[in-house]
Amino acid sequence: MKKSLGARTLVYPTPVFVVCTYDKAGKPNAMTAAWGGICCSQPPAVAVSLRKATYTYGNIVQRNAFTINIPSEDYAKEADYFGMASGKTQDKFAASGLTPAKSEIVDAPSIAEFHFVLECKLIKTVEIGLHTQFIGQVMDLKADDAVIGDTGLPEIEKVRPLIYVPETGDYFSVGGHVGKAFSIGRTVGR
Amino acid sequence: MKKSLGARTLVYPTPVFVVCTYDKAGKPNAMTAAWGGICCSQPPAVAVSLRKATYTYGNIVQRNAFTINIPSEDYAKEADYFGMASGKTQDKFAASGLTPAKSEIVDAPSIAEFHFVLECKLIKTVEIGLHTQFIGQVMDLKADDAVIGDTGLPEIEKVRPLIYVPETGDYFSVGGHVGKAFSIGRTVGR
Repeated sequence: MKKSLGARTLVYPTPVFVVCTYDKAGKPNAMTAAWGGICCSQPPAVAVSLRKATYTYGNIVQRNAFTINIPSEDYAKEADYFGMASGKTQDKFAASGLTPAKSEIVDAPSIAEFHFVLECKLIKTVEIGLHTQFIGQVMDLKADDAVIGDTGLPEIEKVRPLIYVPETGDYFSVGGHVGKAFSIGRTVGR
Repeated sequence: MKKSLGARTLVYPTPVFVVCTYDKAGKPNAMTAAWGGICCSQPPAVAVSLRKATYTYGNIVQRNAFTINIPSEDYAKEADYFGMASGKTQDKFAASGLTPAKSEIVDAPSIAEFHFVLECKLIKTVEIGLHTQFIGQVMDLKADDAVIGDTGLPEIEKVRPLIYVPETGDYFSVGGHVGKAFSIGRTVGR
């Protein structure tokens, strides 16, 4: 029996995206966001929603660029910190001890220690309400050798990304392999 | 050392959203999408991107409503099937043996057997490219007693949602608890 729980922003899974930008003065900043995901295949694009009050909001409007960095479980503390502190008052890279790296293609830094980054160019801004959605065209995906498997692609078991659970505020890891997509459903209805 | 892997739609995690709608004639349909996520807190809103070629696209344009149903691992096969077959030529509910349930608030069905559903009213349509993004205001979250924990909220360990990995096309489960959000990062920089 299903219960009505009201109009909540709860769905599974939500990501832990560390969004990196430069401010006016060129100071690199990192902020964690869970409201986002891939939003288009052609052009390849990813969406992330931010409140106007965030420092990152102004940085993206000004630079038209951001990177999405995926922390492994090993960097859960740093990712959590990036979601609490503000770049307005703090140098979050300095405080975390992580290293800002220049991007090849876009005007935004990435986190050197993280193994997976999308370089994004802002192509659309969507006003929704409390959050503004930034849609970035994925210009390049860069991944560390350490997380790339035999197929030449990153492997989720090596990337070990975090899963965020809204409402209760918890981070989870990724579990085991369940099945192949576009495959395990072939027997349904047959 | 990071390698450039090109402009790919790969990020971790992406969800397995089963989007349910009615067609013109009132036939319920279910389709699986991984391009989506929460996009606003106020109003509470969720985004899902679909190609114009899908049957669900036309249904949402016509009915201005959809539901997002979260399959547990037990329904990985059905979710995969919903992502391959088209409602244009098939009655996917009949083929899967799953039961369409009338929603209380929106003009879209949900899947009775799934334990978690968001009822959504279309509030914005964003043209991006191959995919069109539908932004739905979450009107209600309904969850089965079986997945609700002591706090009165659903628990991810009980919902057992799937995680989709693009590019390689794999489903994974959720693993263990890593830490509390807005908490484990408090020691960083101190």
